[in-house]
Amino acid sequence: MRSILFLLFSITLSLGFAQTDSTQIKSFYNAALTEGKAYEDLRTLCKTIGARLSGSAEASMAIEWGKKQMEGYNFDKVYLQEIMVPHWERGTKEAGWIRTSNGKLQKVNLLALGGSIGTNGLLKADVIMFNSLDELKKAKKKDVKGKIVFINKHMDEQQINTFKAYGGCYMVRGSGAIESSKLEAKAVLIRSLGLPISEHPHTGSMYYLDSIAKIPAAALSTKDADALAKSLNKGRSSFVLEMDCRDYPDVISYNVIGELTGTEKPNNIITFGGHLDSWDIGEGAHDDGAGIVHCMEALRIIKTSGYKPKNTLRLVFFMNEENGNNGGKSYANWAKTQKNENHIAALESDRGGFAPRGFHCDGPKKYIDLLKTFETDLTHYDLHVFEKGYGGVDIGPLRQEFEDIPLFGFVPDSQRYFDFHHAPSDVFENVNKRELELGCAAIASMLYLLDKNL
Amino acid sequence: MRSILFLLFSITLSLGFAQTDSTQIKSFYNAALTEGKAYEDLRTLCKTIGARLSGSAEASMAIEWGKKQMEGYNFDKVYLQEIMVPHWERGTKEAGWIRTSNGKLQKVNLLALGGSIGTNGLLKADVIMFNSLDELKKAKKKDVKGKIVFINKHMDEQQINTFKAYGGCYMVRGSGAIESSKLEAKAVLIRSLGLPISEHPHTGSMYYLDSIAKIPAAALSTKDADALAKSLNKGRSSFVLEMDCRDYPDVISYNVIGELTGTEKPNNIITFGGHLDSWDIGEGAHDDGAGIVHCMEALRIIKTSGYKPKNTLRLVFFMNEENGNNGGKSYANWAKTQKNENHIAALESDRGGFAPRGFHCDGPKKYIDLLKTFETDLTHYDLHVFEKGYGGVDIGPLRQEFEDIPLFGFVPDSQRYFDFHHAPSDVFENVNKRELELGCAAIASMLYLLDKNL
Repeated sequence: MRSILFLLFSITLSLGFAQTDSTQIKSFYNAALTEGKAYEDLRTLCKTIGARLSGSAEASMAIEWGKKQMEGYNFDKVYLQEIMVPHWERGTKEAGWIRTSNGKLQKVNLLALGGSIGTNGLLKADVIMFNSLDELKKAKKKDVKGKIVFINKHMDEQQINTFKAYGGCYMVRGSGAIESSKLEAKAVLIRSLGLPISEHPHTGSMYYLDSIAKIPAAALSTKDADALAKSLNKGRSSFVLEMDCRDYPDVISYNVIGELTGTEKPNNIITFGGHLDSWDIGEGAHDDGAGIVHCMEALRIIKTSGYKPKNTLRLVFFMNEENGNNGGKSYANWAKTQKNENHIAALESDRGGFAPRGFHCDGPKKYIDLLKTFETDLTHYDLHVFEKGYGGVDIGPLRQEFEDIPLFGFVPDSQRYFDFHHAPSDVFENVNKRELELGCAAIASMLYLLDKNL
Repeated sequence: MRSILFLLFSITLSLGFAQTDSTQIKSFYNAALTEGKAYEDLRTLCKTIGARLSGSAEASMAIEWGKKQMEGYNFDKVYLQEIMVPHWERGTKEAGWIRTSNGKLQKVNLLALGGSIGTNGLLKADVIMFNSLDELKKAKKKDVKGKIVFINKHMDEQQINTFKAYGGCYMVRGSGAIESSKLEAKAVLIRSLGLPISEHPHTGSMYYLDSIAKIPAAALSTKDADALAKSLNKGRSSFVLEMDCRDYPDVISYNVIGELTGTEKPNNIITFGGHLDSWDIGEGAHDDGAGIVHCMEALRIIKTSGYKPKNTLRLVFFMNEENGNNGGKSYANWAKTQKNENHIAALESDRGGFAPRGFHCDGPKKYIDLLKTFETDLTHYDLHVFEKGYGGVDIGPLRQEFEDIPLFGFVPDSQRYFDFHHAPSDVFENVNKRELELGCAAIASMLYLLDKNL
C-alpha cells in the first residue's frame, strides 16, 4: 500500500514538475494572452509619461517608472546603472513655409532632426532639390551655395521588408547636413523616412562633423515633400524656416536593470531589453515602449510560471538609443571592464509591437543553427523566421566586448512600422493588444529556450 | 551581319517575353505596391457606399460600382448573374438597458443579430446567464421560462489563430435563439464575438426553426456583457430591450462577374473573389471590402503585366455571404447546371486586409502538394503558410457541384480581425495600405501559379 502511494506521489511529482518545453511555452502564451500586464504597462508609459528623449524630465520619470515596475514584479535584483547622455531640446519655435513657384505661401509640417542647430530667427533661401545623397555629393558648390538643400529620397516601397527600405534612406537623414554644408548650403530639408503619404513628419538622429559648419536640418512630411517637389518642378521655389532647437550640456541618466538570478550558473548572463528613451514627439509607443514592455512582461511571466532559469536573465531598459546609444555602449563597457562578467547571449526588441514573425541571430554559425532548432517548438505560435540577421542597436556594443556572443533580434511583422516610426502618430492607440501580447510570449519562450540550451 | 542582328533580336525577344516565375511575381508585387489601385478602390467602396447588406439600396449601389470598376479595368467580359437574396432591416429602434442588481439603469451598446425579429415595443424581463450553449441546453424550462437568456461565452484568447476562437463561439450566435426558445425564454442576448473588451457590439447571422417560436436576439458589446455578468453575479438583474428589426420579402440581386479569357483552355475556369455584401453597420472594410479589392486588383495587375492566362480567370463579387450565401450557392448551381462549365480551382479572400501569411487548400492531396511547391517562389514575400485548410464560404458550394475541385483560401494575419469583424469599427481607416496591397500581390501571384500549373 505504501509503495503504491509512493508511486502515485512520484507520478504526481513528475507530472507537476517535469514540464516539457511545449507545455512551458504554452503556459507563457496563456499567461500573456489572458493575464497579461504588458498592454496596461504600455498605456501607463505612454499616457502618464509620453515622449521621453534623453535628458528630458520625461526620461527621468520613465526611469523612475521602470524601476518601480520591476520592483513591483519582484525580480531578484533591481538597480540603476549611471550613464551620461546628450541633452538636445526642440524648443518652442518650429515652422516652415514653401514659397511656391507661383509665389504663394504654403505652410508645411516639419520636424527638426534630432541634434540639429536652430535657425537663429527666420532663414529664407531658394531651394535646390536632389533625389539622393549621391546626387547631392556630385553637385557643384556654385549651384548649392547659399541655398536650402532638399533631399527628396523616397523609401523604396517595393522592398517587402520595410527595414530594408529604411536602410536605403537613413544616411540621408544622418549625413544630409554634412554633405549640404560641404557645398555651403544654408540648411537641409529631407523627405521624412516614412512609407505612407501623410501629414506626419518623421524625426530621427543626424550628425555634424567638427570640421564642417553646422547647418539646420529638418524633415518634411511626405505630403509636404511631394508639394515642395511639385513646386520645384514648376520653377524657382524658396523656403522659410524657423527652428530654435539646441544642444545643452550632457546630463547624468540611467539604464534600468532587473534580474532573475540563475540557479545553476548565476555568473552566466543573458541580457535582454529595449530602449526606454524615445523621440520627443508622439509617445514612443512602438519605438520602443513596445520593446520595453515586451521584455518586462517576458521576465514577469517566466517568474510567475515558476520556471527557474539556470543562467541569470538580465532585463535592461537602455537609455539613449535614439541619439547616441550611450546606454548600450556604457552597458557593454561596464559589464566587461568594471564587472568582468560572462555574457553568453543577448536579445533585443526594437522593431515595434506588431504580430511576431520570429527571431534573427547575429553571431557564430552554431548559434544560428541552434536558433533554427527552436522552430519545432515555436511554429505552432505562427513564428516562422529563424535565421541570420540583425540583433539590435542597444545590444550591439556587446559584440566589441564579448567577441562570439550571439545577439538575437525579435522580428515582428514590419509592414506598419514606418507608418509610425519617430512620428507624432507613434502613440498607444496604434498598438494592438493581442499583437503586443504575442510578442511578450514569443520573447519569454525564446529566453526559456536560450536558457535551457546555452 | 544580318545573322548577328537576328541573334540580337532573338535574345531581346526571349528576354522580353520569357518571364520567369520569379520576375513575373516580382512585377505583381511592384505594381501593387507602387501603382496600386486597391486602397483607393476600397476607400470609394467604404466611403461612397458604406455598409451594404443584401437587399439594401447600398447593396444595389455596390453592384453598380463593382460592374463599373471592372469595366473600367477592361476585363474581357463583365456581367451580372441574377440571384434572389433575403432582405432584413435593422429598423430605427435599437436600445437596451441593464436594470442592475442594485436597481440602477445602465444603457448598453447592442446590435440586433441579423435575421432577428423585433420586440414589438419594450421587452422587460429578468435575465438568466449561461456561460455556453451547452450550459443552456442542460437548463430546466422552469428556470428559463419568461426570462431573457444571456449567453456570456468568451472567445478563447489563448487560441493563437483567432478564427479557431471564433469557431468555438459562433454556434452561440447562430443557435442561441433556438435553444433559448425551446425553454420558452422571451429573448436572447449574447456576448459579442469579438476579442477585445470594447464598447463595439458585433452583429452576425442567427437562425430560427419553423417549428420553434421566434424570439428576438441581440449581441452586447464585450464591455456591456461584462457589466451584465457583474450585475448578475451580485444578484437578480433584469433587462429592457427594444428592437424593431424585421424581415421583408426576398429581392432580386446580383453577383458581379469579370473575366480574363484563357488563351489555351478558355473553358477551364478558375473562380476567385470575395463577397460584396456586408453587415449593415461600419463600412464592411475588412469584411469583405478588402477581399473584393484584393481580387479585383489581382486581376488588374495580371492584365496590365501582359501575362495571358491559359485558363479563364473569373473574378466574382459574391452577394449575400453574410446572411444566406445565396450568391455562392446560386453561382455553383448556375455554373454546373445551367452552363455545364469546367471548374478547375477556386480561391477566396474573406479574412480581412491584413499582412499576408499564405494560403490554405481544401481539396485532394495532390493540390495540397502542389500548393506546397509554391513556397519556393513566395517565401521571399514573407509568405509561409502553404497547407491544408479552409477555402471560403462563397466558393464552398462549388464542392457540391465539382467534387474534386481545390478550394484555396487566402490567409492574412488573423490577430486583429476580430477587433473589427461585424462591428461599427470595421471602417476604411482600420485597413492599412501596405498590408492591403501585399494581399493583392499575393493573390495575383497565386492565380498566376495556379494558372501555370493546372
